[in-house]
Amino acid sequence: MSTIDFDGWTCPMPLRDYPQIVLGHGGGGKLSGDLVEHLFLPAFHNPALAALADGAALPLEGTGLRLAFSTDSYVVRPLFFPGGSIADLAVNGTVNDLAMLGARPLYLSAGMIVEEGLSIGVLGALVERMAAAARAANVQIVTGDTKVVDRGHGDGIYINTSGIGIIPDGVNIAPQNARPGDAVLVSGTIGDHGMAIMSVREGLEFETEIQSDSAPLNGMVAALLAVTPEIHVLRDPTRGGMASSLNEIARSAQVGIDLEDRLLPVRPEVAAACELLGMDPLFVANEGKLIAIVPPQHADAILEAMRQHPFGANAARIGTVVEQHPGMVVSKTGIGGTRVVSMQIGEQLPRIC
Amino acid sequence: MSTIDFDGWTCPMPLRDYPQIVLGHGGGGKLSGDLVEHLFLPAFHNPALAALADGAALPLEGTGLRLAFSTDSYVVRPLFFPGGSIADLAVNGTVNDLAMLGARPLYLSAGMIVEEGLSIGVLGALVERMAAAARAANVQIVTGDTKVVDRGHGDGIYINTSGIGIIPDGVNIAPQNARPGDAVLVSGTIGDHGMAIMSVREGLEFETEIQSDSAPLNGMVAALLAVTPEIHVLRDPTRGGMASSLNEIARSAQVGIDLEDRLLPVRPEVAAACELLGMDPLFVANEGKLIAIVPPQHADAILEAMRQHPFGANAARIGTVVEQHPGMVVSKTGIGGTRVVSMQIGEQLPRIC
Repeated sequence: MSTIDFDGWTCPMPLRDYPQIVLGHGGGGKLSGDLVEHLFLPAFHNPALAALADGAALPLEGTGLRLAFSTDSYVVRPLFFPGGSIADLAVNGTVNDLAMLGARPLYLSAGMIVEEGLSIGVLGALVERMAAAARAANVQIVTGDTKVVDRGHGDGIYINTSGIGIIPDGVNIAPQNARPGDAVLVSGTIGDHGMAIMSVREGLEFETEIQSDSAPLNGMVAALLAVTPEIHVLRDPTRGGMASSLNEIARSAQVGIDLEDRLLPVRPEVAAACELLGMDPLFVANEGKLIAIVPPQHADAILEAMRQHPFGANAARIGTVVEQHPGMVVSKTGIGGTRVVSMQIGEQLPRIC
Repeated sequence: MSTIDFDGWTCPMPLRDYPQIVLGHGGGGKLSGDLVEHLFLPAFHNPALAALADGAALPLEGTGLRLAFSTDSYVVRPLFFPGGSIADLAVNGTVNDLAMLGARPLYLSAGMIVEEGLSIGVLGALVERMAAAARAANVQIVTGDTKVVDRGHGDGIYINTSGIGIIPDGVNIAPQNARPGDAVLVSGTIGDHGMAIMSVREGLEFETEIQSDSAPLNGMVAALLAVTPEIHVLRDPTRGGMASSLNEIARSAQVGIDLEDRLLPVRPEVAAACELLGMDPLFVANEGKLIAIVPPQHADAILEAMRQHPFGANAARIGTVVEQHPGMVVSKTGIGGTRVVSMQIGEQLPRIC
């Protein structure tokens, strides 16, 4: 067998603090960012990847077209939860990553890693849910692959989806486009998905069951772009929640972001669950919400278009992009002070998506 | 929690024989085919998927262009083996799936499912090998995703790659295009990858170490298409080996395929290992070989172009497409008889790619 010189492989400092992968490396926070910055980017370096968006915007030679291309693997536990399943997440998540580039999603792939022993009935139910989610999002699942791993070496099923879309002419949406003065909007209540998973795992009972918000956002994005193509940034705050997404944007664009706690839309049952578990909704995953950063003169019209959309009834303006404290997100608290909304280091809740 | 009526999910007969997923459902043989035919196709039905090729050929509205799109997850054990690693397979495998549509591969995604506890050094070495393989295949890895699963719930790492390519004008390569009279070519020795993995797992020692043939085939495909765009079928015989690929082609095109055992190129050490383990090289996986089915008048020129290519030195004409016995592959044996080369049911060797 050929020998690999693992010790000869060198790696910049931040990763050496962790000689082995920990759960937090998949959490969408600082550790995930370190892996991308210090391991994937140097190895795979190219402009599309370096943009650090939810997907890649790719010029298609000789056509003037730009493709959007994105991939995500889903490892959520449990496979079924209130408001959705791993199958819904797998379709909606990749549709949303494409939509966050302003693209119209067209085609998805489905790569299944199935654990030996999974019931064919469960697999069938998941496949039908994927098909239904694809119909709802108006995309086609056109290619696939199934691998089976030995019993004990999976978790029922892991699903990867990759997706292709077309970015319309004149649309230029990217994290580094945030500008001081821009309005920060969110399309609805935050923290629903993460707390739905958490409440199932912890066996919490509330008067109202917390449902995941898993939903395809391409329809809403099309509606927003119909208001104006001048949208600067779109982002779906999944793993790592609003805090991670906003910090990444602030860092990419070298701007500050000012929020106000009282403006954040949070369902009462989610707020209650967060309080019980000592969590902050800003750090909890969403699977059917988007952040839009838009020029101030378009903010009202875009907010109105969000609210008109079935998935945007609770949309709100939550803050402003500022010149001060570049790379940093701060929020005004209820008692009039301010707090720094930092990026979390690792994972608040493993296996959330 | 919402309840799922698993029993209410109905499934046509062949799957009901197996109420649970078995390793063979991932083996690329008859069981894999059943899953696709009776579970995925009915749920996701669309023309691109129904073509049952290694990837999808997709018209891109308003451009006259056809995109190729493919996905594959890699779960091979061990992660490193003679002649390659899971990283090389992940890049070359998806590049090859695109090339088998006649496409020029352009962009890949990389979706990693990493097990908690994997050494960062091993991850780094794999990422560097992916980058090197991408450079060698002249494709860019433009988007990615990393998830971490709990210790014990993975196998170090599973890698999904999806890929996008462009299918040149005038190229129409698909399994159903095989015609009676066509020549059946293979680009080199068969069974190398499978026996390389097997010999590591079984601890077999031969005078000559068996190396995986993992290689990108897009360069060779471009060279063949430069001879003539009139290539009917291309296929890389991975899981399930030559036998599964040829049976799928025979079934898709409703033709027979006649081989001759003595024409099959097999390395002596692979033949010896197969004999020792009671295996047939026709059923063993390849990761750097292609089957080409071409009109007889072009066969010699295409074979010559294969042999000129660094990965095609041992290319050979191994048989002919016939009208007789549609859907069936037969081979003339050394003693002058014929044998039916059937599709295997399940998996000869689990976790081969």
